[in-house]
Amino acid sequence: MLSSRLQEVLDGRWAHVRKAARSELTGDEFVTVFGETIDEARERVTRQLRRLPADPGVAAGFPIEYGGQADPGGSVVAAEMLAQIDLSLMVKAGVQWGLFGGAVVALGTKYHHDRYLRDIISADLLGCFAMTETGHGSDVQQLRTTCTYDPATQTFDLHTPHDAARKDYIGNAARDGRMAVVFAQLISGGKRYGVHAWLVPIRDEDGKPLPGVTTGDDGHKAGLLGVDNGRLSFDHVSVPREMLLDRYGQVAPDGTYTSSIDNDVRRFFTMLGTLVRGRVVVGGSAANAAKSALTIAVRYGESRRQFGAPGEDREIALNDYLAHQRVLTTNLATAYALHFAQDELVTALHDVQTADGPVDEHRQRELESRAAGLKAAQTWHATRSIQAAREACGGAGYLAENRLPGLKADTDVFTTFEGDNTVLLQLVAKGLLTGYRDAFGSLDGWGRATFVADQVRSMVLERTAARSLIERLIDAVPGRDEEVALTNRGWHLALFEDREKHLLDGAVRRLRKGASLKPERQFDIFNDVQDHVLETARAHVDRIVLEAFVAGIDRTADDEVKALLSKVCDLYALSTVEANKGWYLEHGRLTPARSKAVTGMVNDLLRQLRPHMTTLVDAFAIPDEWLNAAILREEPARQDVMAAHDATL
Amino acid sequence: MLSSRLQEVLDGRWAHVRKAARSELTGDEFVTVFGETIDEARERVTRQLRRLPADPGVAAGFPIEYGGQADPGGSVVAAEMLAQIDLSLMVKAGVQWGLFGGAVVALGTKYHHDRYLRDIISADLLGCFAMTETGHGSDVQQLRTTCTYDPATQTFDLHTPHDAARKDYIGNAARDGRMAVVFAQLISGGKRYGVHAWLVPIRDEDGKPLPGVTTGDDGHKAGLLGVDNGRLSFDHVSVPREMLLDRYGQVAPDGTYTSSIDNDVRRFFTMLGTLVRGRVVVGGSAANAAKSALTIAVRYGESRRQFGAPGEDREIALNDYLAHQRVLTTNLATAYALHFAQDELVTALHDVQTADGPVDEHRQRELESRAAGLKAAQTWHATRSIQAAREACGGAGYLAENRLPGLKADTDVFTTFEGDNTVLLQLVAKGLLTGYRDAFGSLDGWGRATFVADQVRSMVLERTAARSLIERLIDAVPGRDEEVALTNRGWHLALFEDREKHLLDGAVRRLRKGASLKPERQFDIFNDVQDHVLETARAHVDRIVLEAFVAGIDRTADDEVKALLSKVCDLYALSTVEANKGWYLEHGRLTPARSKAVTGMVNDLLRQLRPHMTTLVDAFAIPDEWLNAAILREEPARQDVMAAHDATL
Repeated sequence: MLSSRLQEVLDGRWAHVRKAARSELTGDEFVTVFGETIDEARERVTRQLRRLPADPGVAAGFPIEYGGQADPGGSVVAAEMLAQIDLSLMVKAGVQWGLFGGAVVALGTKYHHDRYLRDIISADLLGCFAMTETGHGSDVQQLRTTCTYDPATQTFDLHTPHDAARKDYIGNAARDGRMAVVFAQLISGGKRYGVHAWLVPIRDEDGKPLPGVTTGDDGHKAGLLGVDNGRLSFDHVSVPREMLLDRYGQVAPDGTYTSSIDNDVRRFFTMLGTLVRGRVVVGGSAANAAKSALTIAVRYGESRRQFGAPGEDREIALNDYLAHQRVLTTNLATAYALHFAQDELVTALHDVQTADGPVDEHRQRELESRAAGLKAAQTWHATRSIQAAREACGGAGYLAENRLPGLKADTDVFTTFEGDNTVLLQLVAKGLLTGYRDAFGSLDGWGRATFVADQVRSMVLERTAARSLIERLIDAVPGRDEEVALTNRGWHLALFEDREKHLLDGAVRRLRKGASLKPERQFDIFNDVQDHVLETARAHVDRIVLEAFVAGIDRTADDEVKALLSKVCDLYALSTVEANKGWYLEHGRLTPARSKAVTGMVNDLLRQLRPHMTTLVDAFAIPDEWLNAAILREEPARQDVMAAHDATL
Repeated sequence: MLSSRLQEVLDGRWAHVRKAARSELTGDEFVTVFGETIDEARERVTRQLRRLPADPGVAAGFPIEYGGQADPGGSVVAAEMLAQIDLSLMVKAGVQWGLFGGAVVALGTKYHHDRYLRDIISADLLGCFAMTETGHGSDVQQLRTTCTYDPATQTFDLHTPHDAARKDYIGNAARDGRMAVVFAQLISGGKRYGVHAWLVPIRDEDGKPLPGVTTGDDGHKAGLLGVDNGRLSFDHVSVPREMLLDRYGQVAPDGTYTSSIDNDVRRFFTMLGTLVRGRVVVGGSAANAAKSALTIAVRYGESRRQFGAPGEDREIALNDYLAHQRVLTTNLATAYALHFAQDELVTALHDVQTADGPVDEHRQRELESRAAGLKAAQTWHATRSIQAAREACGGAGYLAENRLPGLKADTDVFTTFEGDNTVLLQLVAKGLLTGYRDAFGSLDGWGRATFVADQVRSMVLERTAARSLIERLIDAVPGRDEEVALTNRGWHLALFEDREKHLLDGAVRRLRKGASLKPERQFDIFNDVQDHVLETARAHVDRIVLEAFVAGIDRTADDEVKALLSKVCDLYALSTVEANKGWYLEHGRLTPARSKAVTGMVNDLLRQLRPHMTTLVDAFAIPDEWLNAAILREEPARQDVMAAHDATL
């Protein structure tokens, strides 16, 4: 079947991880439950977490010597698969093995690894990743929690100076966490060395908070009821010197601070950079949840016959309506494009994190930028397409038993956690503005605008997967004018690239002008062009995604699959151009006639893809048990059609 | 204070209803509760419903002789106010007094009024409005439930022929309803007379389903937990002849059918038309819920200081960011525009429903079209802006205690109930295509396409509130070219009107062409241009909304308020033009330079309105108790700012 062959292409390099999840994570213990109380949901998810297999599994990223597989790519894919079962379970696993365990691996040293990693992998030691504070979400450099070293006792004093400095929204903090990786300002000898992390016990074996630790419960949330998010405050808690996760900064018994990275800001962002996997997991999980929603909506739209065609002997399914296709098929095309982009990102992450020798700074920066941009694109795609799927199912889409409400509620936070999307796009833009050189600069929003404006150089096009292919396609375009076929791939690529370049040039010009007019108003200089800068970042991500899709199609051997993917890619490219047609017209990249022709071609592609809507969702290969939507089991609409045919009156 | 004077303008004609709600519906019994079980929520909402005052209240629309106020406008506004307290309560009240009670009033006659209205108004008799069936959401003409008259027993036999014909998503059906207005196909003497409604007891005094009635529970939903939506099936239930709500169609004891309206379809849509109030309430309630969300997000964005301005001694609030204003202030401008449009709609509804003498068919059709269009616009605005408000509050926006998750989940169904928005926009478009003449034609999607195409005449501009004002403003535009100021109101009006006209002309042309090429493929003729037709309807609604806003500003006496509203109107108009700039450029209505200038002016207006963001939400005058958001009480961010200032290190 075409859908099975398409599935093989989508399953890709970690197909074994995907297939193992589909066959092993089944049965009653992994079925999503509706209408649980918060306590029931937490209980269930903790139970499920402990039953997750280690191999292949989310813990596959840990070093082999402690029981992992040294397979960071596999661990990301395993987490993404959990997102199709239950998003609370995915987040809980991500907190435990990605954030908490990942921080111990990446920021700690052998002392910490030997003592804790096995229990972390087995989930005998559940932990928290305590970075975010109530008063400081995105500006993590400015955390207010302090951890002050005292050489007399050889301990740190961990302290929450005021309410806004309490750690907030921390997974595992409300109930299950026994330890936490706590981020705070390191102070020694009266001097501040920036944000570092400590491994701090927070509860005793009975689950009672330890002396000086106050835990709180974030309580009910929009979704993710199974994750016990909570708050942590510290009242002069004593932390042994050894519990500083000291890979990037060490404090000697006498209080002397040492680090291989002199600059505090740079050190902090290097530390953060090692934790990039979280963003990759969140983006991929959001996209996978969107696939579940689209699968439900497309299958429902296929079975649901809303009206008979007037004057004709044929039934009209919801999926036959152009407006329905405009929503579902275009979102499907985006889902496919993002799948290939995520695939490329996971591969890049895996290769960077398993490379021998010292870290390649340039590749690391590029990975971080791409992870940030794709996390934003995928989570916004999830918010949009799950909402669209819900509406496409009408009243049925509002019932919990049809799964869509849960998918919407659970994924809704993804646009603002693991980095707020807007802040992440600014990070992407900053990387572009400085030619990737200063990407790990301050996250203070708009700091050092004049510096940035001075540093700008021409855009560096980073095309990991298929640089030569892309250039060949662009070069082959026979003049960029009205004569080129609307489905010419090189023309699409050129349009995307041109938009990014032009937006970037314009942003640079406007920043320079602002800097010359009011050099002292750094915030205003950036803020005046914030919309332009964000659009630049979006255009960049659009290009990255299209190029990954093109490269993925190029790798596909099966001609029939390739032809179908190519049509889906046409739709992704042209519907993206259509969404930005105002810009293309403003800048003379499309004539009015050509712009109208793009809309006509999008509609034509929707018609061509109509027979393949179910093929495209079948290839996601999500087990019915995971979809767990009552409307897909009952099919009352089909019964109704038959009954209507039988009606004698 | 400016905000108080602005509030007076917004409160408008039914200010006394709004003020009474704000002062009376307070205290513990009306506070929103988070984390309830479904049973607790249903219990609470039913209790609250019974405690709602009658005057002013949602029941104000009933005739004075039965205890109402004959004030349909007041009843709509009262329902809208409930939407700011608790959306379940609003829906429950809407089901009881709007749909159920409203159907008894509008479709029944004195017999039914005398027997039931007092108990309905007092909420001693809770009831359902049982129209929608599992298999037929939007195509209500094609309901499968039958009600067959038997002259021998002088009773009807009410029957659900198969599963897909069960009534579904029916409020009050799962728990509280004792009677239901049931819509079914009337059959007498072997002949079908189309859909009619009966008043049918469904439960006994103990709440047990009556013989032949099967009730079901829709269970957990995304939101609106306090509304007991459920299912109803009938197994040959005997219904006395008198229980037919027989205002528009009567069955004599011998089975003879009579009606003042010969055509079945026309009769059905006349019956539906009397129930237009439900759509007006849903649209207004969605918009009011959006105001709550925007109030929370704007106040939070004002107090939250995310970053300090680099190199300067000033704090930057979230609201200072252009990207934040792009989301919140433009949504606020839309909220204002829709407020005036809703105000005009409620007035039109009130005037039509309290007019003496026979129904003015033309005004009734226009009211239905406007109610449909504004319901779609307002509910989509609510979905978008509540989502935006949630994201603008970051992680805090995901916690139930901050109210936004509840607002999002509760309102989410509004885009697809009381008429699916897409279907409603098609209804609007059909009205435009036939110059309002055939607006009550079949809802079968695309029936009689050739007929419609033949009937098309030039667009009839209906401008209820300020026809001459609008024309004067448009006529005063000094040539529609680059020279006109970007804030020229006549130019805005001309742009909106021109877009609607041109889209309509194009739709007509394409429909005629399709009809001549393939007259037998009626579905395809319409479906090929469905996106175009929907865009036409959206352009129509945009114009209606702008004109209502302009008329509302014109009525405002207070100069300072007027100036502020005018700026908000500039932003609404230009951000709408900006959102559609692709179209304006494609059609030569904007030059590229002018289009870029529009974006520049939008940003400029955002800056000008920055100091008024809180004024604009304060004028909504939503009591803190109703907003009930923990982040607005705690203000940890402010504490943090002070603490940061105090920090000595």
